[in-house]
Amino acid sequence: MSEESKVAIGLRGIKVANSTISTVHKDGTGLYYRGYTIEDLAEKSSFEEVAYMLIYGHLPNKDEYKNWVQKLKEGRKIPQDVKNVLAQLPKDANPMAVLQVGVSALGIMEPEEKFQGKEISARLIGALPTILGYWYHTSRGQPVPESEEETIAGYTLHMLTGKKPDPLETQMLNVSLILYAEHGFNASTFTARVVASTLADYYSSITAAIGALSGPLHGGANEKAIRMLLTFNDPEDAKNKIMEMLAQKEKVMGFGHGVYKIADPRHAIIMQWAEKLAQLKQREDLLELAKTVITVMKEEKNLFPNVDFITGVVYYLAGIDIPLYTPIFVIGRSSGWSAHIFEQREDNKLIRPRANYVGPEYQEYIPIDQR
Amino acid sequence: MSEESKVAIGLRGIKVANSTISTVHKDGTGLYYRGYTIEDLAEKSSFEEVAYMLIYGHLPNKDEYKNWVQKLKEGRKIPQDVKNVLAQLPKDANPMAVLQVGVSALGIMEPEEKFQGKEISARLIGALPTILGYWYHTSRGQPVPESEEETIAGYTLHMLTGKKPDPLETQMLNVSLILYAEHGFNASTFTARVVASTLADYYSSITAAIGALSGPLHGGANEKAIRMLLTFNDPEDAKNKIMEMLAQKEKVMGFGHGVYKIADPRHAIIMQWAEKLAQLKQREDLLELAKTVITVMKEEKNLFPNVDFITGVVYYLAGIDIPLYTPIFVIGRSSGWSAHIFEQREDNKLIRPRANYVGPEYQEYIPIDQR
Repeated sequence: MSEESKVAIGLRGIKVANSTISTVHKDGTGLYYRGYTIEDLAEKSSFEEVAYMLIYGHLPNKDEYKNWVQKLKEGRKIPQDVKNVLAQLPKDANPMAVLQVGVSALGIMEPEEKFQGKEISARLIGALPTILGYWYHTSRGQPVPESEEETIAGYTLHMLTGKKPDPLETQMLNVSLILYAEHGFNASTFTARVVASTLADYYSSITAAIGALSGPLHGGANEKAIRMLLTFNDPEDAKNKIMEMLAQKEKVMGFGHGVYKIADPRHAIIMQWAEKLAQLKQREDLLELAKTVITVMKEEKNLFPNVDFITGVVYYLAGIDIPLYTPIFVIGRSSGWSAHIFEQREDNKLIRPRANYVGPEYQEYIPIDQR
Repeated sequence: MSEESKVAIGLRGIKVANSTISTVHKDGTGLYYRGYTIEDLAEKSSFEEVAYMLIYGHLPNKDEYKNWVQKLKEGRKIPQDVKNVLAQLPKDANPMAVLQVGVSALGIMEPEEKFQGKEISARLIGALPTILGYWYHTSRGQPVPESEEETIAGYTLHMLTGKKPDPLETQMLNVSLILYAEHGFNASTFTARVVASTLADYYSSITAAIGALSGPLHGGANEKAIRMLLTFNDPEDAKNKIMEMLAQKEKVMGFGHGVYKIADPRHAIIMQWAEKLAQLKQREDLLELAKTVITVMKEEKNLFPNVDFITGVVYYLAGIDIPLYTPIFVIGRSSGWSAHIFEQREDNKLIRPRANYVGPEYQEYIPIDQR
């Protein structure tokens, strides 16, 4: 802003802090986590390792990795008091609010002072699938799955579907969590940093960030995209209905992006897994519908699919209940949020902008019986 | 910011939105809510009326006021399911996290769709003292007070102390809630607006704002100030200990302000009530200690007391347990948060700033056994 009088609505383009965590839209399309391309990470790494790297700033050596994975696994156990809280919540609860209740309750039972430095993030990330799965099954009168899955991806799938996952499903979710892990100063990450800037505890920042991600302008597109696809009978029907939506100026979820201008680099990666999973599940028809929509959107609006469009498809193919898709986004993004909370604390300054006051000047108070 | 390359750390001085809600530090000392001075409001209005005015933009007429007060009173009742959740939380829980759990649970049981426009704010503001009081007494094995107090101030006192309040105490808390109601784009209000900008529901914004207010750089000074005062034996001891703190470069809580430069206009108002209440409770000695500290801080550091310094004293004189002071701040500020959430929605744009990336350039992924 060149003049004091200007108002930076939405803070678009305003650089609010220095950060070493990620580079979004490098050269218009790339996404790098601490210098590593998401393509390399999706192919060669694991969500556990990516989370460590985001949070600690470097890839772990063998001992660091072993210790980190151990902490993440221990984090799966949640206190009985937190279970008791979750057991009160109905099955039609907003799952994002369930996560907020669960995280705040966990923070009450295990305050941050109990943890050494950044290890609290392993506790939280480990606990999220359990919080979600515990509520999901308990509220439906179903037994909570017991899972010995090695990875967070496998454990999450097992907890949410109640079935031991196919290795291909686990690999897909592992990649999806990596793709959702971090994305610069998006609204939820920024929320986490604003809260962290007051020196509030870690849980307060995470709870706040979950609230921001619950907003339709932020999370939720993956759920809406698959719900739309499921209403199409065949590619012809899909094309007709999308054309009709465009004619009605309705928003087609999962297309375009506020930051990327040419393509969302995460789409091509998750699409590879959609191909494999569609074949395994013999649901090439569903993927065909998705591809039809992509073609129409390209031809008609020159818009590209973002990460959410096909993520909804792969989660659906893996048998996960649709309302749980944004909560899975939380599991992935909790790693990026954690990295940003710790970075904010390193060189903290309270984030406190100003308003441009455009309201009334002095008003005399008139008693109510004279109004 | 005059150049793209500059980083607005903490967003200090950056105007992030137009707002008609309040003017902070007008002419260096004044505080106006929609053009009304806080001096007028503290003398002539009620917290209920101020909350309405902040949220709806104008002082209510008789019918509007009657309806609003009725909604606030109905809001005191909370669902049994929310009580069941609160009953799981231990007595040593962080009360701010209790409020987060309670508000998120309330949002699960009574989603925003159930409410007409801004009426949800009456539901929330009405419920906050009950959430707090229910947990406070239940976790201590005490009966939850039943209160027919007319005002939010009286009801809050009754719920938190378990005793029917003296009219002077009620008047004091009414004024205090007015003084805490609104203060521009402070960190918690800004948090509420960032979350609201994703079009997340009302409860998500409030829960996030509570998290921000829980931070030591934001809320909490009233509690710290009174805890300090209670360690002083007499004015001489107070003076010596403050001099010692200053020599040790320790921060004396409740002094100075990030926005006001000459005085915090709220201090003089709450001080009047401290005088009355100290007399009623025959605790002029405690107020004498506070005045000694004010004198020393003025002489030694040229610093003025902010709203929190004496607020801790009056809450203590009213017999409220110290850990509940920041939660009472929540009850007051929830009115301002609500006004800002609704204002953000009126002309919404997602709040999404950028980071200034200063991390590593491209890094090649090295397999773990080669690290």
